[in-house]
Amino acid sequence: MITLTLIGIGTGNPDHLTLAAASEIAAADLILIPLKDAGKEDLAGLRRSICDRHAGPRTGIVEFPLPRRDSDDPDYFQAVERWHDAIAVAWQDQITAHLPDLSGRVALLVWGDPALYDSTLRIADRLRLPVTRRVIPGITAIQALCAAHAIPLNQIGAPVQITTGRRLRDHGWPEGADTLAVMLDGGCAFLTLPPDDLHIWWGAFLGMPQQILDHGPLPECGPRIARTRATARAAHGWIMDIYLLRRA
Amino acid sequence: MITLTLIGIGTGNPDHLTLAAASEIAAADLILIPLKDAGKEDLAGLRRSICDRHAGPRTGIVEFPLPRRDSDDPDYFQAVERWHDAIAVAWQDQITAHLPDLSGRVALLVWGDPALYDSTLRIADRLRLPVTRRVIPGITAIQALCAAHAIPLNQIGAPVQITTGRRLRDHGWPEGADTLAVMLDGGCAFLTLPPDDLHIWWGAFLGMPQQILDHGPLPECGPRIARTRATARAAHGWIMDIYLLRRA
Ligand SMILES: C[S@@+](CC[C@H](N)C(=O)[O-])C[C@H]1O[C@@H](n2cnc3c(N)ncnc32)[C@H](O)[C@@H]1O
Ligand SMILES: C[S@@+](CC[C@H](N)C(=O)[O-])C[C@H]1O[C@@H](n2cnc3c(N)ncnc32)[C@H](O)[C@@H]1O
Repeated sequence: MITLTLIGIGTGNPDHLTLAAASEIAAADLILIPLKDAGKEDLAGLRRSICDRHAGPRTGIVEFPLPRRDSDDPDYFQAVERWHDAIAVAWQDQITAHLPDLSGRVALLVWGDPALYDSTLRIADRLRLPVTRRVIPGITAIQALCAAHAIPLNQIGAPVQITTGRRLRDHGWPEGADTLAVMLDGGCAFLTLPPDDLHIWWGAFLGMPQQILDHGPLPECGPRIARTRATARAAHGWIMDIYLLRRA
Repeated sequence: MITLTLIGIGTGNPDHLTLAAASEIAAADLILIPLKDAGKEDLAGLRRSICDRHAGPRTGIVEFPLPRRDSDDPDYFQAVERWHDAIAVAWQDQITAHLPDLSGRVALLVWGDPALYDSTLRIADRLRLPVTRRVIPGITAIQALCAAHAIPLNQIGAPVQITTGRRLRDHGWPEGADTLAVMLDGGCAFLTLPPDDLHIWWGAFLGMPQQILDHGPLPECGPRIARTRATARAAHGWIMDIYLLRRA
Protein backbone atom coordinates (compact mmCIF):
# COMPACT_ATOMS: atom_id res chain seq x y z
CA MET A 1 0.00 0.00 0.00
CA ILE A 2 1.16 3.54 -0.83
CA THR A 3 0.96 6.23 1.81
CA LEU A 4 0.92 9.68 0.25
CA THR A 5 1.83 12.39 2.74
CA LEU A 6 1.32 16.05 1.92
CA ILE A 7 3.85 17.90 4.04
CA GLY A 8 3.46 21.62 4.72
CA ILE A 9 6.92 23.20 4.69
CA GLY A 10 6.15 26.82 5.61
CA THR A 11 6.56 29.78 3.30
CA GLY A 12 10.26 30.49 3.01
CA ASN A 13 11.89 30.18 6.41
CA PRO A 14 13.40 26.66 6.54
CA ASP A 15 13.11 26.74 10.34
CA HIS A 16 9.33 27.05 10.09
CA LEU A 17 9.31 23.33 9.30
CA THR A 18 7.70 21.32 12.11
CA LEU A 19 9.34 18.36 13.82
CA ALA A 20 6.56 16.19 12.32
CA ALA A 21 7.40 17.45 8.82
CA ALA A 22 11.11 16.81 9.34
CA SER A 23 10.54 13.24 10.50
CA GLU A 24 8.09 12.50 7.67
CA ILE A 25 10.72 13.68 5.21
CA ALA A 26 13.32 11.47 6.89
CA ALA A 27 11.00 8.45 6.75
CA ALA A 28 9.91 8.90 3.11
CA ASP A 29 10.87 6.35 0.48
CA LEU A 30 10.19 8.80 -2.32
CA ILE A 31 9.88 12.58 -2.42
CA LEU A 32 8.43 14.09 -5.59
CA ILE A 33 9.68 17.59 -6.43
CA PRO A 34 7.86 19.30 -9.30
CA LEU A 35 10.02 21.53 -11.48
CA LYS A 36 8.02 24.66 -12.18
CA ASP A 37 8.49 27.42 -14.68
CA ALA A 38 11.55 29.60 -14.63
CA GLY A 39 11.62 32.66 -12.38
CA LYS A 40 10.92 31.05 -9.05
CA GLU A 41 14.15 29.05 -8.70
CA ASP A 42 14.41 30.33 -5.13
CA LEU A 43 11.36 28.24 -4.25
CA ALA A 44 12.66 25.03 -5.83
CA GLY A 45 15.94 25.81 -4.04
CA LEU A 46 14.19 25.90 -0.68
CA ARG A 47 12.56 22.51 -1.32
CA ARG A 48 15.92 21.05 -2.30
CA SER A 49 17.72 22.43 0.74
CA ILE A 50 14.99 21.08 3.04
CA CYS A 51 15.47 17.64 1.45
CA ASP A 52 19.26 17.88 1.78
CA ARG A 53 18.90 18.67 5.44
CA HIS A 54 16.18 16.21 6.46
CA ALA A 55 15.88 13.31 3.99
CA GLY A 56 16.87 9.88 5.27
CA PRO A 57 19.51 7.57 3.81
CA ARG A 58 16.86 5.52 1.94
CA THR A 59 14.87 8.48 0.65
CA GLY A 60 14.75 8.79 -3.14
CA ILE A 61 14.32 12.38 -4.31
CA VAL A 62 12.88 12.67 -7.78
CA GLU A 63 12.43 15.90 -9.71
CA PHE A 64 9.90 15.80 -12.53
CA PRO A 65 8.62 18.45 -14.93
CA LEU A 66 5.27 19.85 -13.82
CA PRO A 67 2.74 19.68 -16.69
CA ARG A 68 1.68 23.12 -17.90
CA ARG A 69 -1.80 24.54 -17.79
CA ASP A 70 -3.24 25.29 -21.23
CA SER A 71 -3.51 29.07 -20.99
CA ASP A 72 -5.18 29.19 -24.44
CA ASP A 73 -8.20 27.22 -23.25
CA PRO A 74 -11.09 29.75 -23.19
CA ASP A 75 -12.77 27.75 -20.38
CA TYR A 76 -10.57 28.55 -17.37
CA PHE A 77 -12.15 26.01 -15.02
CA GLN A 78 -11.96 23.23 -17.59
CA ALA A 79 -8.30 24.08 -18.22
CA VAL A 80 -7.59 23.80 -14.49
CA GLU A 81 -9.44 20.46 -14.30
CA ARG A 82 -7.37 19.06 -17.17
CA TRP A 83 -4.19 20.43 -15.68
CA HIS A 84 -4.88 18.77 -12.33
CA ASP A 85 -5.62 15.49 -14.14
CA ALA A 86 -2.28 15.76 -15.94
CA ILE A 87 -0.41 16.42 -12.69
CA ALA A 88 -2.04 13.37 -11.07
CA VAL A 89 -0.89 11.26 -14.04
CA ALA A 90 2.65 12.66 -13.69
CA TRP A 91 2.73 11.70 -9.98
CA GLN A 92 1.36 8.30 -10.78
CA ASP A 93 4.04 7.70 -13.42
CA GLN A 94 6.77 8.60 -10.96
CA ILE A 95 5.30 6.47 -8.19
CA THR A 96 4.93 3.37 -10.37
CA ALA A 97 8.43 3.89 -11.82
CA HIS A 98 10.17 4.29 -8.46
CA LEU A 99 8.01 2.08 -6.23
CA PRO A 100 7.00 -0.71 -8.63
CA ASP A 101 5.66 -2.84 -5.75
CA LEU A 102 3.16 -0.04 -5.12
CA SER A 103 4.10 0.01 -1.49
CA GLY A 104 6.00 2.62 0.48
CA ARG A 105 5.89 6.20 1.72
CA VAL A 106 5.61 8.96 -0.87
CA ALA A 107 5.91 12.58 0.24
CA LEU A 108 5.04 15.86 -1.47
CA LEU A 109 6.40 19.10 -0.04
CA VAL A 110 3.66 21.74 -0.07
CA TRP A 111 4.34 25.47 0.26
CA GLY A 112 2.88 26.78 3.53
CA ASP A 113 0.00 24.59 4.69
CA PRO A 114 -1.65 22.09 2.31
CA ALA A 115 -5.10 23.33 3.46
CA LEU A 116 -4.70 26.96 2.35
CA TYR A 117 -5.12 28.00 -1.31
CA ASP A 118 -3.33 24.94 -2.59
CA SER A 119 -4.43 22.25 -5.06
CA THR A 120 -2.30 19.34 -3.89
CA LEU A 121 -5.11 17.68 -1.91
CA ARG A 122 -7.50 17.98 -4.86
CA ILE A 123 -4.90 16.52 -7.21
CA ALA A 124 -4.30 13.63 -4.78
CA ASP A 125 -8.02 12.81 -5.02
CA ARG A 126 -7.53 12.09 -8.74
CA LEU A 127 -4.89 9.38 -8.31
CA ARG A 128 -6.02 6.03 -9.70
CA LEU A 129 -3.87 4.12 -7.22
CA PRO A 130 -4.92 2.79 -3.84
CA VAL A 131 -3.29 5.38 -1.56
CA THR A 132 -3.73 6.41 2.04
CA ARG A 133 -3.58 10.20 2.16
CA ARG A 134 -2.09 12.01 5.14
CA VAL A 135 -1.51 15.72 5.80
CA ILE A 136 1.15 17.36 7.96
CA PRO A 137 0.24 21.02 8.57
CA GLY A 138 2.75 23.80 7.90
CA ILE A 139 3.09 27.47 8.84
CA THR A 140 1.07 29.61 6.41
CA ALA A 141 1.95 32.96 4.88
CA ILE A 142 -0.71 34.53 7.13
CA GLN A 143 1.14 33.32 10.21
CA ALA A 144 4.52 34.36 8.82
CA LEU A 145 3.06 37.84 8.22
CA CYS A 146 1.59 38.22 11.72
CA ALA A 147 4.76 36.87 13.35
CA ALA A 148 7.04 39.18 11.35
CA HIS A 149 4.96 42.21 12.41
CA ALA A 150 4.37 40.80 15.92
CA ILE A 151 0.63 41.51 15.61
CA PRO A 152 -2.49 39.49 16.39
CA LEU A 153 -4.56 38.29 13.41
CA ASN A 154 -7.90 39.04 15.06
CA GLN A 155 -9.26 41.78 17.28
CA ILE A 156 -10.52 40.48 20.65
CA GLY A 157 -13.23 37.87 20.01
CA ALA A 158 -13.77 39.25 16.48
CA PRO A 159 -13.88 37.42 13.15
CA VAL A 160 -11.29 37.44 10.37
CA GLN A 161 -11.88 36.83 6.70
CA ILE A 162 -9.22 35.19 4.54
CA THR A 163 -9.68 36.17 0.92
CA THR A 164 -7.94 36.80 -2.41
CA GLY A 165 -6.89 39.95 -4.23
CA ARG A 166 -9.30 39.10 -7.04
CA ARG A 167 -12.30 38.92 -4.70
CA LEU A 168 -11.33 42.12 -2.93
CA ARG A 169 -11.10 43.92 -6.28
CA ASP A 170 -14.35 42.47 -7.64
CA HIS A 171 -16.52 42.51 -4.52
CA GLY A 172 -15.03 45.19 -2.26
CA TRP A 173 -14.84 44.89 1.52
CA PRO A 174 -16.92 41.91 2.67
CA GLU A 175 -19.67 42.33 5.26
CA GLY A 176 -19.19 41.19 8.80
CA ALA A 177 -15.42 41.26 9.25
CA ASP A 178 -13.14 44.04 10.51
CA THR A 179 -9.98 42.19 9.55
CA LEU A 180 -9.08 40.77 6.13
CA ALA A 181 -6.06 38.63 5.29
CA VAL A 182 -5.54 38.98 1.54
CA MET A 183 -3.53 36.46 -0.48
CA LEU A 184 -2.98 35.76 -4.18
CA ASP A 185 -3.08 39.42 -5.09
CA GLY A 186 -1.35 40.00 -8.42
CA GLY A 187 -1.81 43.74 -8.32
CA CYS A 188 -2.40 45.78 -5.15
CA ALA A 189 -6.19 45.36 -4.82
CA PHE A 190 -5.92 47.41 -1.60
CA LEU A 191 -5.59 50.51 -3.81
CA THR A 192 -9.18 49.99 -4.98
CA LEU A 193 -10.67 50.41 -1.46
CA PRO A 194 -11.90 53.64 0.06
CA PRO A 195 -8.92 53.97 2.39
CA ASP A 196 -10.54 55.78 5.31
CA ASP A 197 -9.91 54.21 8.68
CA LEU A 198 -8.04 51.22 7.25
CA HIS A 199 -4.66 50.09 8.45
CA ILE A 200 -2.47 47.74 6.39
CA TRP A 201 0.30 45.33 7.41
CA TRP A 202 2.12 44.05 4.32
CA GLY A 203 4.91 41.52 3.77
CA ALA A 204 6.71 40.17 0.72
CA PHE A 205 9.12 37.21 0.49
CA LEU A 206 8.26 36.40 4.11
CA GLY A 207 10.84 34.26 5.86
CA MET A 208 13.30 34.62 2.98
CA PRO A 209 16.50 36.67 2.93
CA GLN A 210 14.83 39.30 0.72
CA GLN A 211 11.85 39.76 3.14
CA ILE A 212 10.24 43.23 3.06
CA LEU A 213 7.72 44.59 5.58
CA ASP A 214 5.69 47.77 5.74
CA HIS A 215 2.64 48.91 7.69
CA GLY A 216 0.63 52.00 8.42
CA PRO A 217 -2.61 53.83 7.66
CA LEU A 218 -3.74 52.79 4.17
CA PRO A 219 -4.02 56.32 2.68
CA GLU A 220 -0.32 57.03 3.12
CA CYS A 221 1.03 53.49 3.23
CA GLY A 222 -0.87 51.95 0.28
CA PRO A 223 0.85 53.95 -2.49
CA ARG A 224 4.24 53.44 -0.80
CA ILE A 225 3.70 49.65 -0.75
CA ALA A 226 2.69 49.71 -4.42
CA ARG A 227 5.99 51.42 -5.27
CA THR A 228 8.08 49.10 -3.08
CA ARG A 229 6.33 46.10 -4.60
CA ALA A 230 6.99 47.22 -8.19
CA THR A 231 10.67 47.86 -7.44
CA ALA A 232 11.15 44.53 -5.65
CA ARG A 233 9.34 42.62 -8.35
CA ALA A 234 11.53 44.17 -11.02
CA ALA A 235 14.68 43.46 -9.02
CA HIS A 236 13.88 39.77 -8.28
CA GLY A 237 11.86 38.92 -11.38
CA TRP A 238 8.94 37.68 -9.22
CA ILE A 239 7.22 38.49 -5.93
CA MET A 240 4.99 36.82 -3.37
CA ASP A 241 3.19 39.10 -0.98
CA ILE A 242 0.32 39.12 1.48
CA TYR A 243 -1.36 41.69 3.70
CA LEU A 244 -3.72 42.25 6.55
CA LEU A 245 -6.27 45.07 6.44
CA ARG A 246 -8.00 46.21 9.61
CA ARG A 247 -10.71 48.77 10.26
CA ALA A 248 -9.80 51.22 12.98
CA MET B 1 18.11 44.35 27.18
CA ILE B 2 15.35 41.75 27.53
CA THR B 3 14.13 39.88 24.46
CA LEU B 4 10.65 38.50 25.01
CA THR B 5 9.79 35.75 22.53
CA LEU B 6 6.24 34.46 22.19
CA ILE B 7 6.60 30.92 20.90
CA GLY B 8 3.68 29.14 19.25
CA ILE B 9 3.76 25.48 20.31
CA GLY B 10 0.86 24.01 18.31
CA THR B 11 -2.35 22.68 19.84
CA GLY B 12 -1.56 19.34 21.42
CA ASN B 13 0.74 17.36 19.15
CA PRO B 14 4.28 17.93 20.48
CA ASP B 15 5.65 17.22 16.97
CA HIS B 16 3.77 20.23 15.61
CA LEU B 17 6.49 22.36 17.17
CA THR B 18 8.61 24.07 14.52
CA LEU B 19 12.40 23.86 14.38
CA ALA B 20 12.44 27.62 15.08
CA ALA B 21 10.34 27.11 18.21
CA ALA B 22 12.59 24.28 19.41
CA SER B 23 15.75 26.33 18.99
CA GLU B 24 14.20 29.40 20.67
CA ILE B 25 13.32 27.22 23.65
CA ALA B 26 16.85 25.82 23.72
CA ALA B 27 18.34 29.33 23.63
CA ALA B 28 16.07 30.84 26.29
CA ASP B 29 17.49 32.01 29.61
CA LEU B 30 14.07 31.96 31.25
CA ILE B 31 10.79 30.27 30.30
CA LEU B 32 7.70 31.41 32.16
CA ILE B 33 4.99 28.76 32.58
CA PRO B 34 1.70 30.06 33.99
CA LEU B 35 -0.14 27.65 36.28
CA LYS B 36 -3.80 27.83 35.34
CA ASP B 37 -6.86 26.61 37.10
CA ALA B 38 -7.39 22.95 37.77
CA GLY B 39 -8.95 20.75 35.09
CA LYS B 40 -6.57 21.38 32.23
CA GLU B 41 -3.49 19.70 33.69
CA ASP B 42 -3.02 17.97 30.34
CA LEU B 43 -2.19 21.36 28.83
CA ALA B 44 0.33 22.33 31.50
CA GLY B 45 1.75 18.81 31.07
CA LEU B 46 2.31 19.39 27.35
CA ARG B 47 4.18 22.64 28.06
CA ARG B 48 6.35 20.89 30.63
CA SER B 49 7.18 17.97 28.35
CA ILE B 50 8.11 20.37 25.54
CA CYS B 51 10.47 22.14 27.95
CA ASP B 52 11.94 18.83 29.13
CA ARG B 53 12.64 17.86 25.55
CA HIS B 54 13.96 21.13 24.14
CA ALA B 55 15.21 23.46 26.90
CA GLY B 56 18.93 24.13 26.98
CA PRO B 57 21.32 23.50 29.91
CA ARG B 58 21.17 27.17 30.97
CA THR B 59 17.41 27.58 30.59
CA GLY B 60 15.59 28.42 33.81
CA ILE B 61 12.01 27.17 33.82
CA VAL B 62 9.76 29.03 36.24
CA GLU B 63 6.18 28.19 37.00
CA PHE B 64 4.08 30.97 38.48
CA PRO B 65 0.42 31.23 39.48
CA LEU B 66 -1.63 32.98 36.81
CA PRO B 67 -3.67 35.82 38.36
CA ARG B 68 -7.41 35.19 38.20
CA ARG B 69 -9.95 37.27 36.38
CA ASP B 70 -12.55 38.88 38.63
CA SER B 71 -15.66 37.08 37.43
CA ASP B 72 -17.84 39.21 39.75
CA ASP B 73 -16.97 42.43 37.93
CA PRO B 74 -20.17 43.47 36.12
CA ASP B 75 -18.07 45.18 33.41
CA TYR B 76 -16.59 42.27 31.46
CA PHE B 77 -14.21 44.33 29.33
CA GLN B 78 -12.91 46.23 32.34
CA ALA B 79 -12.38 42.94 34.18
CA VAL B 80 -10.33 41.61 31.25
CA GLU B 81 -8.26 44.82 31.11
CA ARG B 82 -7.46 44.54 34.82
CA TRP B 83 -6.70 40.87 34.49
CA HIS B 84 -4.24 41.49 31.63
CA ASP B 85 -2.59 44.24 33.69
CA ALA B 86 -2.19 41.79 36.58
CA ILE B 87 -0.65 39.15 34.31
CA ALA B 88 1.84 41.68 32.94
CA VAL B 89 2.84 42.55 36.53
CA ALA B 90 3.26 38.83 37.33
CA TRP B 91 5.58 38.37 34.31
CA GLN B 92 7.50 41.47 35.26
CA ASP B 93 7.99 40.21 38.83
CA GLN B 94 9.35 36.90 37.54
CA ILE B 95 11.64 38.56 35.02
CA THR B 96 13.13 41.00 37.52
CA ALA B 97 13.54 38.20 40.09
CA HIS B 98 15.28 35.77 37.72
CA LEU B 99 17.13 38.16 35.41
CA PRO B 100 18.03 41.00 37.80
CA ASP B 101 20.41 42.55 35.23
CA LEU B 102 17.36 42.99 32.99
CA SER B 103 19.17 41.33 30.16
CA GLY B 104 18.59 37.95 28.52
CA ARG B 105 16.10 35.89 26.55
CA VAL B 106 12.67 35.30 28.06
CA ALA B 107 10.26 32.89 26.35
CA LEU B 108 6.54 32.30 26.71
CA LEU B 109 4.98 29.16 25.25
CA VAL B 110 1.71 30.03 23.55
CA TRP B 111 -0.95 27.47 22.63
CA GLY B 112 -1.28 27.21 18.84
CA ASP B 113 -0.17 30.43 17.17
CA PRO B 114 0.25 33.64 19.20
CA ALA B 115 -1.71 35.56 16.49
CA LEU B 116 -4.96 33.62 16.79
CA TYR B 117 -7.47 34.27 19.60
CA ASP B 118 -4.75 34.70 22.19
CA SER B 119 -3.98 37.60 24.55
CA THR B 120 -0.26 37.09 25.07
CA LEU B 121 0.77 39.79 22.57
CA ARG B 122 -1.63 42.28 24.14
CA ILE B 123 -0.34 41.49 27.62
CA ALA B 124 3.25 41.90 26.40
CA ASP B 125 2.33 45.45 25.30
CA ARG B 126 1.62 46.29 28.95
CA LEU B 127 5.07 45.45 30.30
CA ARG B 128 6.80 48.43 31.86
CA LEU B 129 10.24 47.08 31.02
CA PRO B 130 12.29 47.82 27.92
CA VAL B 131 11.75 44.62 25.94
CA THR B 132 12.17 43.59 22.33
CA ARG B 133 9.18 41.47 21.37
CA ARG B 134 9.48 38.59 18.91
CA VAL B 135 6.95 36.04 17.70
CA ILE B 136 7.54 32.49 16.46
CA PRO B 137 4.42 31.18 14.69
CA GLY B 138 2.88 27.84 15.63
CA ILE B 139 0.40 25.43 14.07
CA THR B 140 -3.17 26.54 14.90
CA ALA B 141 -6.19 24.42 15.81
CA ILE B 142 -7.65 25.27 12.37
CA GLN B 143 -4.66 23.65 10.69
CA ALA B 144 -4.70 20.66 13.04
CA LEU B 145 -8.39 20.19 12.15
CA CYS B 146 -7.88 20.37 8.38
CA ALA B 147 -4.84 18.09 8.54
CA ALA B 148 -6.62 15.50 10.69
CA HIS B 149 -9.52 15.38 8.21
CA ALA B 150 -7.17 15.76 5.19
CA ILE B 151 -9.39 18.53 3.79
CA PRO B 152 -8.67 21.96 2.31
CA LEU B 153 -9.73 24.98 4.38
CA ASN B 154 -11.04 26.95 1.39
CA GLN B 155 -12.94 26.11 -1.77
CA ILE B 156 -11.00 27.02 -4.94
CA GLY B 157 -10.23 30.76 -4.87
CA ALA B 158 -13.00 31.30 -2.29
CA PRO B 159 -12.88 33.14 1.05
CA VAL B 160 -12.99 31.65 4.54
CA GLN B 161 -14.21 33.34 7.69
CA ILE B 162 -12.66 32.52 11.06
CA THR B 163 -15.11 33.25 13.85
CA THR B 164 -16.27 32.29 17.34
CA GLY B 165 -19.17 30.21 18.61
CA ARG B 166 -20.58 33.29 20.33
CA ARG B 167 -20.69 35.30 17.09
CA LEU B 168 -22.22 32.41 15.16
CA ARG B 169 -24.96 32.08 17.78
CA ASP B 170 -25.63 35.83 18.03
CA HIS B 171 -25.28 36.85 14.38
CA GLY B 172 -25.97 33.70 12.34
CA TRP B 173 -24.13 32.78 9.17
CA PRO B 174 -22.04 35.78 8.02
CA GLU B 175 -22.46 37.21 4.52
CA GLY B 176 -19.89 36.55 1.85
CA ALA B 177 -18.24 33.33 2.97
CA ASP B 178 -19.10 29.71 2.12
CA THR B 179 -16.68 28.31 4.68
CA LEU B 180 -16.54 29.12 8.39
CA ALA B 181 -13.91 27.97 10.86
CA VAL B 182 -15.50 28.24 14.31
CA MET B 183 -13.44 28.38 17.50
CA LEU B 184 -14.14 29.17 21.15
CA ASP B 185 -17.56 27.56 21.07
CA GLY B 186 -18.67 26.63 24.57
CA GLY B 187 -21.89 25.01 23.41
CA CYS B 188 -22.51 23.71 19.88
CA ALA B 189 -23.56 26.96 18.16
CA PHE B 190 -23.84 24.90 14.94
CA LEU B 191 -27.14 23.55 16.29
CA THR B 192 -28.65 27.05 16.01
CA LEU B 193 -28.16 27.22 12.19
CA PRO B 194 -30.69 26.18 9.57
CA PRO B 195 -28.82 23.00 8.66
CA ASP B 196 -29.78 22.69 5.00
CA ASP B 197 -26.88 22.21 2.64
CA LEU B 198 -24.25 22.56 5.37
CA HIS B 199 -21.47 20.09 5.93
CA ILE B 200 -19.47 20.01 9.20
CA TRP B 201 -15.97 18.74 9.99
CA TRP B 202 -15.44 18.65 13.75
CA GLY B 203 -12.47 17.83 15.96
CA ALA B 204 -11.87 17.75 19.71
CA PHE B 205 -8.55 17.37 21.59
CA LEU B 206 -6.77 17.64 18.24
CA GLY B 207 -3.27 16.22 18.25
CA MET B 208 -3.75 14.70 21.70
CA PRO B 209 -4.13 11.02 22.56
CA GLN B 210 -7.85 11.56 23.20
CA GLN B 211 -8.46 13.18 19.75
CA ILE B 212 -11.99 12.73 18.36
CA LEU B 213 -13.10 13.48 14.79
CA ASP B 214 -16.48 13.47 13.08
CA HIS B 215 -17.85 14.90 9.85
CA GLY B 216 -20.92 14.75 7.66
CA PRO B 217 -24.03 16.64 6.59
CA LEU B 218 -25.05 18.95 9.46
CA PRO B 219 -28.66 17.71 9.83
CA GLU B 220 -27.57 14.19 10.77
CA CYS B 221 -24.07 14.89 12.06
CA GLY B 222 -24.77 17.95 14.25
CA PRO B 223 -26.84 16.16 16.93
CA ARG B 224 -24.36 13.25 16.94
CA ILE B 225 -21.45 15.65 17.54
CA ALA B 226 -23.39 17.31 20.36
CA ARG B 227 -23.80 13.92 22.07
CA THR B 228 -20.16 12.90 21.51
CA ARG B 229 -19.04 16.26 22.84
CA ALA B 230 -21.13 15.99 26.02
CA THR B 231 -19.87 12.46 26.71
CA ALA B 232 -16.21 13.36 26.09
CA ARG B 233 -16.48 16.48 28.20
CA ALA B 234 -17.93 14.53 31.09
CA ALA B 235 -15.27 11.83 30.76
CA HIS B 236 -12.27 14.21 30.67
CA GLY B 237 -13.64 17.07 32.79
CA TRP B 238 -12.93 19.58 29.98
CA ILE B 239 -12.96 19.80 26.22
CA MET B 240 -11.45 21.88 23.41
CA ASP B 241 -13.09 21.62 20.04
CA ILE B 242 -13.28 23.38 16.70
CA TYR B 243 -15.15 22.90 13.46
CA LEU B 244 -15.41 23.87 9.84
CA LEU B 245 -18.81 24.52 8.24
CA ARG B 246 -19.16 24.59 4.48
CA ARG B 247 -22.10 25.33 2.20
CA ALA B 248 -22.62 22.64 -0.41
C1 LIG C 1 -1.11 29.55 -3.84
S1 LIG C 1 -1.10 30.43 -2.33
C2 LIG C 1 -0.36 29.24 -1.26
C3 LIG C 1 -0.50 29.56 0.20
C4 LIG C 1 0.22 28.57 1.11
N1 LIG C 1 -0.34 27.22 0.99
C5 LIG C 1 0.16 29.01 2.56
O1 LIG C 1 -0.19 28.18 3.41
O2 LIG C 1 0.49 30.16 2.85
C6 LIG C 1 0.18 31.61 -2.61
C7 LIG C 1 -0.04 32.94 -1.89
O3 LIG C 1 0.43 32.83 -0.57
C8 LIG C 1 1.07 34.03 -0.15
N2 LIG C 1 2.48 33.70 0.16
C9 LIG C 1 3.04 32.48 0.14
N3 LIG C 1 4.31 32.54 0.55
C10 LIG C 1 4.58 33.83 0.83
C11 LIG C 1 5.72 34.52 1.31
N4 LIG C 1 6.85 33.87 1.60
N5 LIG C 1 5.64 35.86 1.48
C12 LIG C 1 4.49 36.51 1.21
N6 LIG C 1 3.39 35.91 0.76
C13 LIG C 1 3.41 34.58 0.58
C14 LIG C 1 0.92 35.02 -1.30
O4 LIG C 1 -0.24 35.79 -1.06
C15 LIG C 1 0.74 34.10 -2.48
O5 LIG C 1 -0.02 34.74 -3.50
C1 LIG D 1 -8.16 30.76 23.10
S1 LIG D 1 -8.26 29.95 21.53
C2 LIG D 1 -6.55 29.70 21.18
C3 LIG D 1 -6.29 29.31 19.75
C4 LIG D 1 -4.82 29.03 19.48
N1 LIG D 1 -3.98 30.22 19.69
C5 LIG D 1 -4.62 28.49 18.07
O1 LIG D 1 -3.72 29.00 17.38
O2 LIG D 1 -5.32 27.55 17.69
C6 LIG D 1 -8.82 28.33 22.04
C7 LIG D 1 -9.72 27.65 21.00
O3 LIG D 1 -8.89 27.02 20.04
C8 LIG D 1 -9.47 25.77 19.66
N2 LIG D 1 -8.51 24.72 20.02
C9 LIG D 1 -7.28 24.90 20.54
N3 LIG D 1 -6.64 23.73 20.69
C10 LIG D 1 -7.49 22.77 20.24
C11 LIG D 1 -7.40 21.36 20.12
N4 LIG D 1 -6.29 20.69 20.48
N5 LIG D 1 -8.48 20.69 19.63
C12 LIG D 1 -9.58 21.35 19.23
N6 LIG D 1 -9.72 22.68 19.32
C13 LIG D 1 -8.68 23.39 19.82
C14 LIG D 1 -10.80 25.65 20.36
O4 LIG D 1 -11.80 26.15 19.49
C15 LIG D 1 -10.60 26.57 21.54
O5 LIG D 1 -11.83 27.09 21.98
